Amino acid sequence: MSHDHPLIYLDHNATTPVVPEVLDAMLPYLRDQYGNPSSDHSFGRRAAAAVDQARAQVAALIGAEPGEIVFSSGGTESNNLAIRGTASVAEPTRRRIVTTSVEHPATTAPCQHLETQGWTITRLPSTPTGSIDTANAAAAMGPDVDLVTMMLAPNETGAILPVGDVAAHAHRAGAVVHTDAAQAVGKIDVDVNDLDVDLLSIAGHKCYAPKGVGALYRRAGTPLGPVLLGAGQEGGVRPGTENVASIVGLGAACELAGRRLAADGPRLVVLRDTLWEQLRDAIPALVRHTPQSSLPNTLMVSFPDVLGRAVLAASPGLAASTGSACHAGQDTPAATLLEMGSTPQVALGAVRLSLGRATTATDISTAAAILAAAHALVTAL
Amino acid sequence: MSHDHPLIYLDHNATTPVVPEVLDAMLPYLRDQYGNPSSDHSFGRRAAAAVDQARAQVAALIGAEPGEIVFSSGGTESNNLAIRGTASVAEPTRRRIVTTSVEHPATTAPCQHLETQGWTITRLPSTPTGSIDTANAAAAMGPDVDLVTMMLAPNETGAILPVGDVAAHAHRAGAVVHTDAAQAVGKIDVDVNDLDVDLLSIAGHKCYAPKGVGALYRRAGTPLGPVLLGAGQEGGVRPGTENVASIVGLGAACELAGRRLAADGPRLVVLRDTLWEQLRDAIPALVRHTPQSSLPNTLMVSFPDVLGRAVLAASPGLAASTGSACHAGQDTPAATLLEMGSTPQVALGAVRLSLGRATTATDISTAAAILAAAHALVTAL
Repeated sequence: MSHDHPLIYLDHNATTPVVPEVLDAMLPYLRDQYGNPSSDHSFGRRAAAAVDQARAQVAALIGAEPGEIVFSSGGTESNNLAIRGTASVAEPTRRRIVTTSVEHPATTAPCQHLETQGWTITRLPSTPTGSIDTANAAAAMGPDVDLVTMMLAPNETGAILPVGDVAAHAHRAGAVVHTDAAQAVGKIDVDVNDLDVDLLSIAGHKCYAPKGVGALYRRAGTPLGPVLLGAGQEGGVRPGTENVASIVGLGAACELAGRRLAADGPRLVVLRDTLWEQLRDAIPALVRHTPQSSLPNTLMVSFPDVLGRAVLAASPGLAASTGSACHAGQDTPAATLLEMGSTPQVALGAVRLSLGRATTATDISTAAAILAAAHALVTAL
Repeated sequence: MSHDHPLIYLDHNATTPVVPEVLDAMLPYLRDQYGNPSSDHSFGRRAAAAVDQARAQVAALIGAEPGEIVFSSGGTESNNLAIRGTASVAEPTRRRIVTTSVEHPATTAPCQHLETQGWTITRLPSTPTGSIDTANAAAAMGPDVDLVTMMLAPNETGAILPVGDVAAHAHRAGAVVHTDAAQAVGKIDVDVNDLDVDLLSIAGHKCYAPKGVGALYRRAGTPLGPVLLGAGQEGGVRPGTENVASIVGLGAACELAGRRLAADGPRLVVLRDTLWEQLRDAIPALVRHTPQSSLPNTLMVSFPDVLGRAVLAASPGLAASTGSACHAGQDTPAATLLEMGSTPQVALGAVRLSLGRATTATDISTAAAILAAAHALVTAL
């Protein structure tokens, strides 16, 4: 039974483990420190102080002020709040959103919803490397654009998009700029001022914090309405009793990421490139989708003449994905790859290998051997 | 410093501790079992199985089927999903909501939002005991009513509202029935068939599970649109990677509540009534707001001729609330009490004492002595 195999986990873009330092930070808030931050007694005040500390930790990682962080239930809610919360307070003359064709459903679905309400959505095409052409983006701007929303890095290829360059054009047109940085925060240096963004989404479970918590950076002064409606928590834009323990975990994860980024990034680039070289040596026709400018941990490849799903099914010792975890198990090609110009056949051969902080050189050579053997087995069938 | 006092916590209606059994159930999902339930490998499948088990545990507590449980980020999101998700798929001839004047902001705010979009909101007045008159509710029904949304028990008084009786009238009018049962689930026997409801909100942090997780019961076949938009999780009505560890915690908390309800309820009634008797013996003019038909753990009283806030400030060994935790620290009287007919002066004297599973008889007599002394001190000032 595959359940008993010691698994090599190369699916960190689907979700990361909660690291022990993060769990240790959370545990007091799952034990004795159980107050509601809104309560006016010492239990409540200690919970509120813990949320405030986490707010400062998240802010520090991305070059923001603590008051610019809104906690949410995750990346999906952060994107909904950014996109629909901005649209809900838009000027009547601005009814267009510029976005890209490589976004996550948490961005595409809110945009489609606004489209049904009379908004115009401009979707920038992908370049062959999974990025966006800045000149294209610049040409799409205009005085009717309310919001530009684009990924910082798609989960599939890990390509890093030119958010800062596009933001400069967007701001000249008077638009608000949002980036879904769920896959980037904690993996590369992300600074809201370098990126020149007004809104930025963070997902805890992509950066070694728990599932079910996230944040939205909201630059001071950026107009934003709530999406969920209720009491006055989170500056009036996100009601509901705060998810204290997980918020503390997100804060601890951000602080840890800040300390580790400089060392983790180069180490993962070496491991990722080694994985690519070992696979390509074994399978010369292997196609690499991940460009040079990418998340250090991500390698998306297509195996020739087979389904990526079949290769992974023949690799029981390895946990990886054929594309976005949100759509796993489907035999429709990854939309991002089709947008990049892959044929459906090549796209169906894709496997996404995403490394993490605990990945070792031994894991990499073992994974390469497993995948090469699996490819040979599937090809021989 | 009050922070060093051993505190008696009588604020369980603001939030409950996570009990050790619940944390123990969660810990594997904050350690080794970190898969994304959407992932098609053993990490993912184990996470999906854990979510499924929790779904069955939550369903079992309220007499539902597992497939009728939608997990959310908490009570506020569950209420938003119930109210706005129902309104989003309403027939054009049904544009009215019947609700009550004793609801939580997570219900009143979505209703007010719909009012701005052309919906009519009928707000049933409170009786003097904080409940709702069924005949009034019956008279409010009509073929234009899309949704009836009413608390099962308000956090302040703990009064139990006649949801089942109102639901029968609502269903005859063809309306969908929602109840916010956040304060009731885990404290009293709650059965969706006895209550005859189509939608029911649960908040984890009111029933010994963590903050940041909740559920919405949705009777099979009840039309419902999503509020947050994204990928296809939770049957397409609640996107976003599942909050696995906290969902497991909510399941464990519901299973535990099911085993303990029969013993906990009567024990808390005795303690709560003892607290009332000891306080009334010390302060004969004390006003009791909590009616006989109420949550076993809740006692709301008004101290005569003083501010409830002042009494609690003079009770550093005791953690309690002057009203809803969402509005703590304000000197505006609790709206629920004004709705019940209290004068502003009486309402400003209110203190809500809410007991929990770990509350002891010693806690109760100590709390009564602390409050009586505090009242004497404040009165003498």
